[in-house]
Amino acid sequence: MVFTGDDISALEKRYRGRLINATSGAKSASLIGTKSEGGDENLALFSSVVHLGANPPLIGFIMRPVHVERHTYQNIISTGRYSVNAVTEAMHVRAHQTSAKYHAGTSEFESCKIDKSYLGDFPVPFCAESPVKIGCILEDDIPVPANGTHLMVGRIVLLSVADAFLHPDGFIDLAAAETAAVTGLDGYHCLGPVRRYSHADPQKEPKRFFP
Amino acid sequence: MVFTGDDISALEKRYRGRLINATSGAKSASLIGTKSEGGDENLALFSSVVHLGANPPLIGFIMRPVHVERHTYQNIISTGRYSVNAVTEAMHVRAHQTSAKYHAGTSEFESCKIDKSYLGDFPVPFCAESPVKIGCILEDDIPVPANGTHLMVGRIVLLSVADAFLHPDGFIDLAAAETAAVTGLDGYHCLGPVRRYSHADPQKEPKRFFP
Repeated sequence: MVFTGDDISALEKRYRGRLINATSGAKSASLIGTKSEGGDENLALFSSVVHLGANPPLIGFIMRPVHVERHTYQNIISTGRYSVNAVTEAMHVRAHQTSAKYHAGTSEFESCKIDKSYLGDFPVPFCAESPVKIGCILEDDIPVPANGTHLMVGRIVLLSVADAFLHPDGFIDLAAAETAAVTGLDGYHCLGPVRRYSHADPQKEPKRFFP
Repeated sequence: MVFTGDDISALEKRYRGRLINATSGAKSASLIGTKSEGGDENLALFSSVVHLGANPPLIGFIMRPVHVERHTYQNIISTGRYSVNAVTEAMHVRAHQTSAKYHAGTSEFESCKIDKSYLGDFPVPFCAESPVKIGCILEDDIPVPANGTHLMVGRIVLLSVADAFLHPDGFIDLAAAETAAVTGLDGYHCLGPVRRYSHADPQKEPKRFFP
């Protein structure tokens, strides 16, 4: 099926939402944890976490337009801190449930039965069972004028990786860690076993070195 | 293993690169096609394509700092057009090979044996075998001051989805389409079968409705 820009504009709203959400591919599912200045905890599912750079260590994610109440955004702006937690297969249904519209003051950690944990003196809770837990300080909040979304830029100040999944060279085996990928708003996948290849060279074919 | 910000700064450069690249999770692998004003074609692998919004239909991706020669960036800025093509399992080794440093004027379509195709009057080639092909017009080029990367914002003006993978409600089954996910710079995964769940409701458990 081929859709032009006009075809896309003419689509029924929910059909268009599912279609366009899926075009960008299956991506990592992350739970972002925050805490309000009043101490209310919040946990929300995102599939837009991207790598920005390793030195300084920066990751980004996309925040939807903030003209409606968004606890995650408000908490990040007021405290400057958030946690990014990898969603596993075992957690994916509970993670999906965090996208329900709970009232302010309701902790999704409790409502969705996701155990929290604290690491060091980082003031925001992590998901205890996540094999990759990232503590971020907000570095920048960049508006995207085209549609009112924001690119939230975070600097990694704390990182916990379950030892079993950390390769000797720094790579994290997310398939062995059983992390989940997500397509669009409601589709979840497990990851097949990772295959790693040599750095690409114009004169050679890529060589698989793991497994 | 727990890493503080100082620990991360002190890591050996390549170890840090692998570690931090993997923290953001396994993400969709996309080949971005461009053409220079002189007609040279270019194809490059990205794992940072994200959904920005459905109406208007917008996707983003992260461009690394452009102080060195980046054909993809130069071509997008000069022509305002690019294609985003889903990488399949069958293509993933050839897609990895596009990250080799080929000389300007070398087409990765040819060097990496990836057949190209044109759709309608869109001036940039697509990857013929990609089950999801997206034609974009550059809508905005947003600098990320924290590290010199750019968020490239594209409006979808053409979209081709292989019929077999398009659900009746607009969802695209990327596992059935055998698209690949990528961790960091060198790790590739297939996707397990998709499971879809009902819209989350605070009063109910999510209900799986597909398959």
